[in-house]
Amino acid sequence: MSATGKPLTKRGEATRRKLLEAAEEVFADLGYHEASIVKITERAGIGLGTFYLYFDSKQQIFEELVVDLNRRVRHSMAEAMAGSANRIDAERAGFEGFFRFTAAHPALYRVVREAEFVSPEMLRLHYTRIVEGYEAGLRAAQSDGDVDAALDPEVTAWALMGAGELIGMRYLLWERDGEGRPPAEIGDDVIDSMMRFIRNALTATNGKGRTHD
Amino acid sequence: MSATGKPLTKRGEATRRKLLEAAEEVFADLGYHEASIVKITERAGIGLGTFYLYFDSKQQIFEELVVDLNRRVRHSMAEAMAGSANRIDAERAGFEGFFRFTAAHPALYRVVREAEFVSPEMLRLHYTRIVEGYEAGLRAAQSDGDVDAALDPEVTAWALMGAGELIGMRYLLWERDGEGRPPAEIGDDVIDSMMRFIRNALTATNGKGRTHD
Repeated sequence: MSATGKPLTKRGEATRRKLLEAAEEVFADLGYHEASIVKITERAGIGLGTFYLYFDSKQQIFEELVVDLNRRVRHSMAEAMAGSANRIDAERAGFEGFFRFTAAHPALYRVVREAEFVSPEMLRLHYTRIVEGYEAGLRAAQSDGDVDAALDPEVTAWALMGAGELIGMRYLLWERDGEGRPPAEIGDDVIDSMMRFIRNALTATNGKGRTHD
Repeated sequence: MSATGKPLTKRGEATRRKLLEAAEEVFADLGYHEASIVKITERAGIGLGTFYLYFDSKQQIFEELVVDLNRRVRHSMAEAMAGSANRIDAERAGFEGFFRFTAAHPALYRVVREAEFVSPEMLRLHYTRIVEGYEAGLRAAQSDGDVDAALDPEVTAWALMGAGELIGMRYLLWERDGEGRPPAEIGDDVIDSMMRFIRNALTATNGKGRTHD
């Protein structure tokens, strides 16, 4: 949709996409306060007047960018998970999809962190939409007997999302190769270690160490 | 230490503490960009000139605030964990200490998120210091046979810290009571659900669902 609410033509869609991609780079490089509509249109190679056919303000393109990144990271996860044989395979594939998207879009973390200040509702929307899908998947796997039925699927979804977020930060965004560039993907050893943790977490223990049920 | 590197008197310590407490409130309420040294000294009821006996700049008091909040949240966790009978009890107590501190200091999350932009080294310092202690505790528990020896303690520490961070955000910072105020503590049902997840995660499964070892 355009800023005036009219549906976009194919060419309009392409222009809107260019503006969102430029905004992703500008917000990630400069942060919200230093970013400006002029810097975004210059980066996109699009006239300043054209910006206002698609967005009302810097705040609005920021919010649309959160919605867009959120939709795309969920798509990347869902695509990776499709056809998994069981929940544990689906978990691994989903996190690989998440890390792949994060490597290609390091702006994701910065934009979501800034949303805390720029637009708290967008921060909530981002996390809540990811959790909703995650929770539904866990509930289905509990029905199938693949996941410990005693786990609360909502709390578990938040826990796993948090685990993935900090592992992505530490082992992807903080890593640099010999030339000072971030790696294109997270190491297999890290994914293996994470999956040992997740496999344990989602599977009922054999009673060892359970003193508080 | 004062801004000139001299050790502080007891009275000096109290003044520095007042400035840090005012900074915590001002940065949390206004964010880094809108905050100013004048607003911090006004909130603290301390003269502007006195500020510079303790800190050089807005950036410096922000960084000292991260160090201070980090030290205190770790203290709150360590104090809660002291005397725990086993690792699972220690985990629960540690998270309760973390959530208690977060309820009393909601600035913790906002300040750490802003550090991404204001001072990335401080963001790393915050997470890394928490992980280091966590990892050491997990290694000791693995030696004692309390925690699955096949888990990587570093990756596990990041995963658990991430789980705690997002559960604290969702079930503490986002919650409001009937009068619109955040709760003083996280619900026992949420802690119970989280502990089911953590107990599973740290305890080797009985083989069920492990298709990829």
